This record gives sequence, structure tokens and C-alpha cells, in this order.
Amino acid sequence: MSRLIVVGGDAAGMSGASQARRLDPDLDITAYERTNWVSYAACGVPYYVGEDVKELRQLQARTPDQFARMDIDVRLRHEVTAIDITAKTVTVHDLDTDTMSQEPYDLLLYTTGARPLFPPIEGLDLDGVFQVRTLDDATAIRAALGDTPRHAVVVGGGYIGLEVAEAFRNLDVPVSVLEMADTVLPRTMDPEMGELVAAQVRELGIDVQTGARVDRVVGVDGHVTGVEAAGITYPADIVVLGLGSAPNSTLAEAAGITLGRTGAVAVTDHQLTSAEGVYAAGDCAEAFHRISGAAVNFHLATVANKQGRVAGTNLGGGDASFPGVLGTAITKVGDIEISRTGLILSEATAAGFDAVATGLRSSTGSHYWPKSTQMRIRTVVDRATSKLLGAQVVGGPGSGKRIDTFAVALWMGLTGADLEYVDLSYAPPFSGVWEPVNIAGRKAASVLH
Amino acid sequence: MSRLIVVGGDAAGMSGASQARRLDPDLDITAYERTNWVSYAACGVPYYVGEDVKELRQLQARTPDQFARMDIDVRLRHEVTAIDITAKTVTVHDLDTDTMSQEPYDLLLYTTGARPLFPPIEGLDLDGVFQVRTLDDATAIRAALGDTPRHAVVVGGGYIGLEVAEAFRNLDVPVSVLEMADTVLPRTMDPEMGELVAAQVRELGIDVQTGARVDRVVGVDGHVTGVEAAGITYPADIVVLGLGSAPNSTLAEAAGITLGRTGAVAVTDHQLTSAEGVYAAGDCAEAFHRISGAAVNFHLATVANKQGRVAGTNLGGGDASFPGVLGTAITKVGDIEISRTGLILSEATAAGFDAVATGLRSSTGSHYWPKSTQMRIRTVVDRATSKLLGAQVVGGPGSGKRIDTFAVALWMGLTGADLEYVDLSYAPPFSGVWEPVNIAGRKAASVLH
Repeated sequence: MSRLIVVGGDAAGMSGASQARRLDPDLDITAYERTNWVSYAACGVPYYVGEDVKELRQLQARTPDQFARMDIDVRLRHEVTAIDITAKTVTVHDLDTDTMSQEPYDLLLYTTGARPLFPPIEGLDLDGVFQVRTLDDATAIRAALGDTPRHAVVVGGGYIGLEVAEAFRNLDVPVSVLEMADTVLPRTMDPEMGELVAAQVRELGIDVQTGARVDRVVGVDGHVTGVEAAGITYPADIVVLGLGSAPNSTLAEAAGITLGRTGAVAVTDHQLTSAEGVYAAGDCAEAFHRISGAAVNFHLATVANKQGRVAGTNLGGGDASFPGVLGTAITKVGDIEISRTGLILSEATAAGFDAVATGLRSSTGSHYWPKSTQMRIRTVVDRATSKLLGAQVVGGPGSGKRIDTFAVALWMGLTGADLEYVDLSYAPPFSGVWEPVNIAGRKAASVLH
Repeated sequence: MSRLIVVGGDAAGMSGASQARRLDPDLDITAYERTNWVSYAACGVPYYVGEDVKELRQLQARTPDQFARMDIDVRLRHEVTAIDITAKTVTVHDLDTDTMSQEPYDLLLYTTGARPLFPPIEGLDLDGVFQVRTLDDATAIRAALGDTPRHAVVVGGGYIGLEVAEAFRNLDVPVSVLEMADTVLPRTMDPEMGELVAAQVRELGIDVQTGARVDRVVGVDGHVTGVEAAGITYPADIVVLGLGSAPNSTLAEAAGITLGRTGAVAVTDHQLTSAEGVYAAGDCAEAFHRISGAAVNFHLATVANKQGRVAGTNLGGGDASFPGVLGTAITKVGDIEISRTGLILSEATAAGFDAVATGLRSSTGSHYWPKSTQMRIRTVVDRATSKLLGAQVVGGPGSGKRIDTFAVALWMGLTGADLEYVDLSYAPPFSGVWEPVNIAGRKAASVLH
């Protein structure tokens, strides 16, 4: 009987373990997870903080007991500290008993996820400074909120930063978002769209500061009292860091498993690493970007689940390929929906495309529909072919999921002219008779030179 | 200078005229329209009836004056009564002066739209019985509503019937929908989905009767008092007919222009008819169905506008092809969103596919997102290839526009396995981590035999 060891029990790992089990009932499967939680929805943490989600357990997709019923042995608070790819063993540290053991494997799924980035800023160790990644972080923040904070600061204006800022706003805690770049969402949206987001988020009563590099976090008696950024001190009795993350590839690197240019584990389209029998998936692994053709490393639950499932199929004796990513993502702040797919303009240019951005203002319904809200669409287009390379949407309710229509278009390599005439749906509450995505296609077609 | 005559001044005609003008500033363009209105949004009429739209003029996309500024001569209340494709003339009846004239053309755009179907039911001529197609209908219904009706009956449970029923509900007028088929939306949704729609619409307080073929409409003193259907009399002081429509191809047929199997005007992918210099577009013209490969005749504003634009490009000296249709459509009743694309199961079987339907229940957000609403997705799949042939969605706010994601997938011939892994967006307020469209792909892939 073959033995599969899963290193890391979140989305990619448990998705892979489950899929391997479905295909191979005889596989011996053990998953080691160093925290108290498996298979949890990290994306839900801001909504637990904001009390949209009442109970922490709601964020757990499946419990260890449920995995046990699938004959998957989940070991919480067990940290894998080394992998020997020649002997095919892992070293496991039981954090509760503080004992070490060697465990043999035939197959290994490396799904260690990502670790938060900590810039060298003084004061990050003060009480009241939090990450927002794990369910333990969630618990800690909710406990701190019990002390009814008067001012919150969120460091970082990416998706998570904006979502946490919305959470504070929903709790009536005044909040400032400090983003060191010139616009929010600097890595995922073009600056023009980032500025639009910042302006709309400010209208919700959230203070958004761009060009605000944090110099230090200050405190009194070990507890945070403020954040200094670009010469200004923002008072804060709670600070949440949303500073991005890096792939957790240290253990793989130490084992001699090949990392890619991104620092994440290099994998084939079957999620196989350079080591025999060792697969990797999720935040710690690279993925093929279908537009740029490059290996990338996104930390998105969607990618983790899909890669985990592909790895699990192959681990279970099946044959599956992961077809790549576009970096499609969505979020909301209040009623503002924000979504994107593919390359932003600077990425497209860096990837060698003669790229140009084009955009349109439209609305989420017919011009005469009273509940229509504004929507801005921006596309990044290859001038040589008019193929769409990326799309970004910012608008009111109903706008954001239009990104999925663009995602399929990008996935299949549609040109602007193709997209203009795709038969998309229309009724006055949902769009103009020319669906804005069709019009975006027309605009994209017009850049052909 | 070439002379273009447009026969019928609604979506297809005016879209074509505008596009021809953009390409050819020298073209002499005259559009004849027999009603009082050009370029109006018929799809908005139910929302004017329901007072979501306050002013009738809001439904007019462009006025004759606006077309005049584009050097397009719009003649309202001018009916073209004959076309001579040999002499290249049309006979025009000026309805106000009751004079006839012959007008020469070099190019002709035939965009006469559709006419409502009237079954041979007694009593349709009673006062208080209305169509819901034109802005004049809209005015008449709103006038009748000024008399505060106590009971309304809508005959026909298609899109328009349901939309008008919603309008009455919004006005607190008790309403019954009488549909002769066993389910509502019988031509556009599979019966299982039609039943789901009917059940949800009933929960809104709208009486929906299926298997209710209307025997006659009854009245007193020339005014409607009720509708008899399947042995039951439904009291009504206002009745609206939503009984479908047929292509307005009589004039073309009389001119010797070839009609297709559907009874609509046969056209090439350039929208050219069998007659030299004569193009057709919109409800009166056929379209190529990309899934069945058959010529079809849909009465959808989206198709009319797109075909009109293609015709206009060719009329203006350009070169455009219409790439076909999927029959994508969407509507809502209250908060229920209803959408569809491609073939329903019976159509797929009739088209020769070894087709099967598969479905899933999902929700519009993560399971832990408090505002998530239910969503049912059904796909029609080719068992030989697992290619998607059709999709239908019924669900709460945010569900309906997912049909556009399916539409691009159908447009490009994606299999279920393809669709399972397309990189679609996720955040807790918008979907589960596996977007329901991805899961629909997985389900579709599973039917492969």
C-alpha cells in the first residue's frame, strides 16, 4: 500500500488529499498541519472580523473528523521540519509533545502555502498589531475589538487591506489605509483604476492614504498607539498588516527541490516537482500564466484548490493537467465591486507585448433603469492582434462578476472583434442592449494598428 | 450618390443606418417608420408599466432630431407597402397625408421587426386588452392603470409575460399569469427550470397557472371582465397578451425575397438577402445558431442591434460578418434572476445531439456569506464530447449574469473539463472558492461516456 504524506493541511493540501482518496481507496494518506486548523477559508477572515460571519467554525470547510471519515489522517499541530527526497522520509515535529519522528512516504504533496511579508519596520511586535491570515489571527483581532478601539490603521492597500478596512468601517471604527505605492491595488490594477477605487472607498468614509510608506509603528507600555508614515502619525490602537506574502518554499529548497524564478516551487503541468514522487500545489507553487507564458506565483484560493485537485488526481493514479492561470480576482468594499483578470498594462509591456489600455464608462443596467450604477471597464489589449491581455472592472452591485466573462475570453484568446459580437445577455435591469463587455470588445478592436 | 432606404426604424434599422453613416458620409439615408417612434427600447415597456421607468421618452434611445444631425432622414408614420427588387423602388404610404409615393433605392435595409401573435381567441378586441410591444401600447396600459384595476391577467408565461406580471405586482394589482404549456418559459427553459421559476414567482404573490389554455376573453359593455382558461374564469379588468411574435416578413415575401424555413428573411452572414442590394436584420431576419448549426429566428434586441450593425457596416462599404447567435437571454421577477443560453434539452435532442442535462444547486456567495442566495444551474451537454450545448440559471441577486460566462464558453466550444478549470473569480460575497460555473463544468465533464 502506497503512502501519501501531505505537508500542510489547507486548501491545496486537503483538496489534493480528498481527490487522491476519491481515485485510490487504498492509498494511506496522512496530512500534517502545524496550526490548529485544516481546510479553512482564509478569505473569510476579514468578514469574520467585520462580523458578517458570526462564528469562526463557519470558515472551516471541513473538520479533521470529516477527513477521518474519508480515511484521511489529519495531524494538527504537527510540523514537518525536513524532507529527505532520497530516503523518501519526512521529519515531523509534534508541537504538543515536542517529539520528533521520521515518517516514510511513497508520494508527497507539498502544500505549505505562503508566509506573510514583514518589512523591517520597528514596532511590529507591539500588542495590537495583527496579521489577517489565519483563523488564530481572526480570533485575536476579534478579541482586541472587544476593547472597542477608537482608531484602526491598515497597512497595505491590497485586496486584504481594503477588505479589513471595510470590516472596521462596518464596526464603526475609524480606519486609515496606508499604502506605500501611489495607488491602492498597485500590483493588480492599473494606476487609473486604483485611483478610482481609492476615490470611491474614501466616499465610504474610509481614510485612504497613498504614497504612505510606514516608517515605524509606535506604542506605549508595549501596546500600539500609532503608525508613522511619510511624516504623519496616524493614531491607532489596532493595526492590521496586509503587506503581501511570499511562498513558503524554504523546506522544499532545503530538501533540494527546484524552485522557480519566483521563489516558489517549480512544477510541471501535472504539479510534479523536480523530486520523484513529490508534488506541489497552491501558494507555495508556481503556475503557468496563460497570457504572459511565464511562471508566476499567485496566492489565491482558487488556484490552490484547482492545483490541489490536479495534484490529487495524479497522486491517486489519474492523469490531470493544470491548464494555467489568469490571476482572476474579485473583491468588494461596501457596494463597490472590484475585479480583474490577466495582465495589467505594465505587466503586459514587461512581457513583451505592444500593449495599450482602453476603457469605457458604462452602467450596470440600462440608462433608464433606476437602480443602474456606474461601472468602469478597462482592458489591456495587444495592438498587433487586438487580443485581450487583461481586464479590470470597478462598479456598483452586479458589475464585478463580469470579470468572469472576460476571463473566458482571455482564456480562449479572443480578439476585441470576437468579443464585440459574442451573444451576451441583456435586459434593462442588467445592462444596456450592447452589454458593456461587448462594447469593451469593440473598443479593444479599435486599437488594432 | 448612393441612396439607402431603411424600412423600419427600430433597433436593427437605426443601428444599421447609424453604422452605414459612420462608414460612408456621402450615403443618402432615409428611414421609414410607420409608428410614432424610432429607436425605442421595447424591452423597457414592462418597466414603464410598473413605474420603474417614469417617463416614456426615457425609452427612446435616439430621437428623429438626433438622427437628422447624423444626416439620416427619419420619416415617422410612413409605411413602406411594397418593394420592387427589379426596379429598385419602394412604395411609401404617408399615413398622415394618406399619399403614396415611389422612392428609388440603391441599397435597402429591411428591418420590419416582428408582429405579435394573436391566437383565434374570442374577445381579444375588448377594451382593456393590451399588447405590450410598442410605446403606444405602454401609453395605453398606463392610461388604463389610472382607473386602478382590481385584477389583471397576463396571457402567456414567457419573458414578457413574467415581466408584466412583476409590473402589476409592483403596482399592487393582483395578477394571474396564464400559460398554456405545462411550465412557464416553455420555449427557452427546460421544464424543470420552468417549474422552479413558477414556484419562486408564486412566492412573490403572483398567481401562476400552467396548463391554462385561454378559451375566451369575456366582457361587459365592450370592456373586459375576465379570462376563461381550462374551465376557470379569472376576473380581470385589464388583460395583457404576451403570446410571442412572428417575423414581419410579408412585405419581403411579396417582393420575391427568399424566406427561410423559420418564415423570416433568409440572409447571408453579411445580412444580405436574395435580392441585390437588399439587406435584412433583426426580428424579421434569420440568424445562424452556433450550437445547432441551424437558421433560427429570435426576437431579441441584442441580435437586432448586432445584425443591424453588421448590415450597416456592409452597406457603408465595409466588410463585416455576423458570427451567429446562442439565444442568450436574461430577465428578473422581483429578486429572482432567470437566464439562459444555447439549446434547451429538447432542442439539443432535436438537433441530433446525444444530449443530457446536468445541474447543481449552489449559492451566489460562500456558504458562510450571510447574503448568499440560492442559485440553480442546469447545463445541456453533448455526451459524445462533453461540450456544453446550453445553460440555464435561476437564482437570487448576482446569479443571472453568470449566463454570460457560459455564453463565451458555448461560443468557443468549451468542454466540461475545459470549463472546470477556467480561472474564474472568487471572494466570499461572490461565490464559493469553486465558482459554480467551474462546478457546472465538472458536472458536464462527468457525463462523457
